[in-house]
Amino acid sequence: MTTVVPHAVDGARLRGRLDELAAVGDTGDGGVCRLALTEADGAGRDLVVTWMRDLGLRVDIDGIGNVIGTWPADATGPAVMTGSHIDTVRTGGRFDGNYGVLAGLEVIETVIESGFVPARPLAVGFFTNEEGARFAPDMLGSLVYVGGLPLEEALDTVAIDGAVLGDELERIGYRGPLPCPASPPAAFVELHVEQGPILEAECITIGAVTSVQGILWFELTIVGQSNHAGTTPMRLRRDPALAAAEIAVTARSIARDLGGDQVATVGRIDLHPNLVNVIPARATLTVDLRNTDPVELARAERMLFDAVERIAAAESVTIEHRTLARFEPVVFDETVIGLVVDAAERRNLPVRRLPSGAGHDAQMLARVCPSAMIFVPSVGGVSHNPTEFTDADDLQAGADVLLDVMLRLADGPIDRPTDGGVHQ
Amino acid sequence: MTTVVPHAVDGARLRGRLDELAAVGDTGDGGVCRLALTEADGAGRDLVVTWMRDLGLRVDIDGIGNVIGTWPADATGPAVMTGSHIDTVRTGGRFDGNYGVLAGLEVIETVIESGFVPARPLAVGFFTNEEGARFAPDMLGSLVYVGGLPLEEALDTVAIDGAVLGDELERIGYRGPLPCPASPPAAFVELHVEQGPILEAECITIGAVTSVQGILWFELTIVGQSNHAGTTPMRLRRDPALAAAEIAVTARSIARDLGGDQVATVGRIDLHPNLVNVIPARATLTVDLRNTDPVELARAERMLFDAVERIAAAESVTIEHRTLARFEPVVFDETVIGLVVDAAERRNLPVRRLPSGAGHDAQMLARVCPSAMIFVPSVGGVSHNPTEFTDADDLQAGADVLLDVMLRLADGPIDRPTDGGVHQ
Repeated sequence: MTTVVPHAVDGARLRGRLDELAAVGDTGDGGVCRLALTEADGAGRDLVVTWMRDLGLRVDIDGIGNVIGTWPADATGPAVMTGSHIDTVRTGGRFDGNYGVLAGLEVIETVIESGFVPARPLAVGFFTNEEGARFAPDMLGSLVYVGGLPLEEALDTVAIDGAVLGDELERIGYRGPLPCPASPPAAFVELHVEQGPILEAECITIGAVTSVQGILWFELTIVGQSNHAGTTPMRLRRDPALAAAEIAVTARSIARDLGGDQVATVGRIDLHPNLVNVIPARATLTVDLRNTDPVELARAERMLFDAVERIAAAESVTIEHRTLARFEPVVFDETVIGLVVDAAERRNLPVRRLPSGAGHDAQMLARVCPSAMIFVPSVGGVSHNPTEFTDADDLQAGADVLLDVMLRLADGPIDRPTDGGVHQ
Repeated sequence: MTTVVPHAVDGARLRGRLDELAAVGDTGDGGVCRLALTEADGAGRDLVVTWMRDLGLRVDIDGIGNVIGTWPADATGPAVMTGSHIDTVRTGGRFDGNYGVLAGLEVIETVIESGFVPARPLAVGFFTNEEGARFAPDMLGSLVYVGGLPLEEALDTVAIDGAVLGDELERIGYRGPLPCPASPPAAFVELHVEQGPILEAECITIGAVTSVQGILWFELTIVGQSNHAGTTPMRLRRDPALAAAEIAVTARSIARDLGGDQVATVGRIDLHPNLVNVIPARATLTVDLRNTDPVELARAERMLFDAVERIAAAESVTIEHRTLARFEPVVFDETVIGLVVDAAERRNLPVRRLPSGAGHDAQMLARVCPSAMIFVPSVGGVSHNPTEFTDADDLQAGADVLLDVMLRLADGPIDRPTDGGVHQ
């Protein structure tokens, strides 16, 4: 066995594993549905754990179901970690999350095969419920991993289908013995598809992610007066559906008025009883607000709730809200960002720095260790959709850059943050 | 047995039957859920049929599941008919429809007990799927009864839950042998709660219903581009939820701009996949437009679809629509309306003429025989709601007026319509 520092991963092997994992929860239209902690998620986890064990990694499972594979198996010191998630939204693509996990596995397999043994151990993990499509908040597993949410509280989380998170973990066999929060890794770097249109539009292969947008998720419940659609004069109506519609239109106008990075989405509306000839009694909707600028994000939140108050008064309905997620914008570690840029440039890959529009597990890890992310292009910027796609060359390029960055981190000095380990 | 013309129904007996029927499908909050042709509707039907048989009526069931009880059982000529429906919306009240059926039964029991035998037979019926909450269109049973929709086409109707109407009729045992269309009754008068606020607000006990609003129901399906809520810039969005919200806001503004009797309701919105962090791929919503003036109603329809076209272009989504119901405004028979006014005045009950804001089976019967309706007040104008309520005195008054009108129609001359039997 040679001991040359490995230069490239096996892209075909990586794509083979992506195909095999995408077959679990295959929706038949190119997409995948493995909502967190469902049977399908359990089957996907089993497959990845089998691959980890086949490579001789030590597989650790913690109390919230995060799974970390470490090499060498008998390593004790802090590892250079990569990873992401394998849960999906209901209409998920095959790359979101899965690519980061399986590229990490591929990097470790490549290093093992090379015979090269870096100074620090290497690890690859997948975190529970990153998407937040079944349990709120999103990035729940990595949040618990870094101590941002007590384990017991997280286990009590109720799914949109009424299931309790702790019960679901037990059911699929992923309530592990390791404690949360975990001891921090030496560094964390996450590889992910961009899920946005910027890299493709600018013909850039590698994104060195500098920061993550702040995220606010609200669930608003509107109560009015259910009544007959034919006999109730317009002036006497207290219509929750109308109020919900006005809030959705307002969310769009807030994003338009603020401009910049501000985005706003109403992705869920539920009316009750939801019948053609009945003014609903109740409407529930969600509003998702994101911005890289915390000041502008706070402004968007104020604008939303000013409008909610006006709309409630005008239609004589009551509107209550729950905050489902609140994550401040996160700035990544400049050293790790620099390693990503440097690795791409050495490989003559077009690279640019950019913020992430989506939330990622790396933003949680950034609280406890130097962290950053690598993006590769998403065709058409499409994600959370069966047609999500990234070219084979880009998949290879991203995994090669991940290989370089992990080996640099595993052998080089790592600057620990000086502010107690918390990067916001 | 005396043979005096009866003067009053037994209000306590009527209320007892209302209570007993409301126990079938009781939702525990004062309301009732007996969606058309469900198990609960079948149980409700069985109860009313048992009462009809106990009174010695001849019970006829036709091919669409309409049930008519006729007295005397061996009568052959056209009957003076009353009736309504016993199906409810999902969050139905206990009076809507049920009151008209059970008051009709009470009128016939009162006449039987009196020993008085009018010249024409009396009949009370309940028609299938009046509400349209499970199958579209509403008033389906009475529409088929008068020949407005072929039986075979009606049997193929698919429910919102995917069930086929004909199968559901078989399943609950109400696919009867009598042909549709039926031979027309001599006259039809329907007693119903107002379901609106006018009678109560004006301290009027009896409404003599002159006409029924025209009804338009549309289902709009909007297809856009599902995508990630964080990474998709606002300018690139094709968001069906936003388009649905704009249509709901537009429907309200159409009603406000047209004024008069125009009402507009968006009662149903379904997003897919309906998740907080995903721009939906698809939205489906319904729009319910009603007006007593056919010219204004046509104008509302044009305004709606002009706006739909603008909204689709602005958001780059496609919007298709299906017409779920289209009923022109209906004018009732002046002779029968006059009998209602006269009966109320003879009893010193405050009475006024008014149009109906809701659709009713009587508007279908008006196509084939002289028809009208009697309204009693709804407290707060509330209907299609568990808190729907009508005072015992008003229940008694309405049933007494129904008794008078049916006996006048059964013994007096009836002017047949001269336009081939079709009243629009």
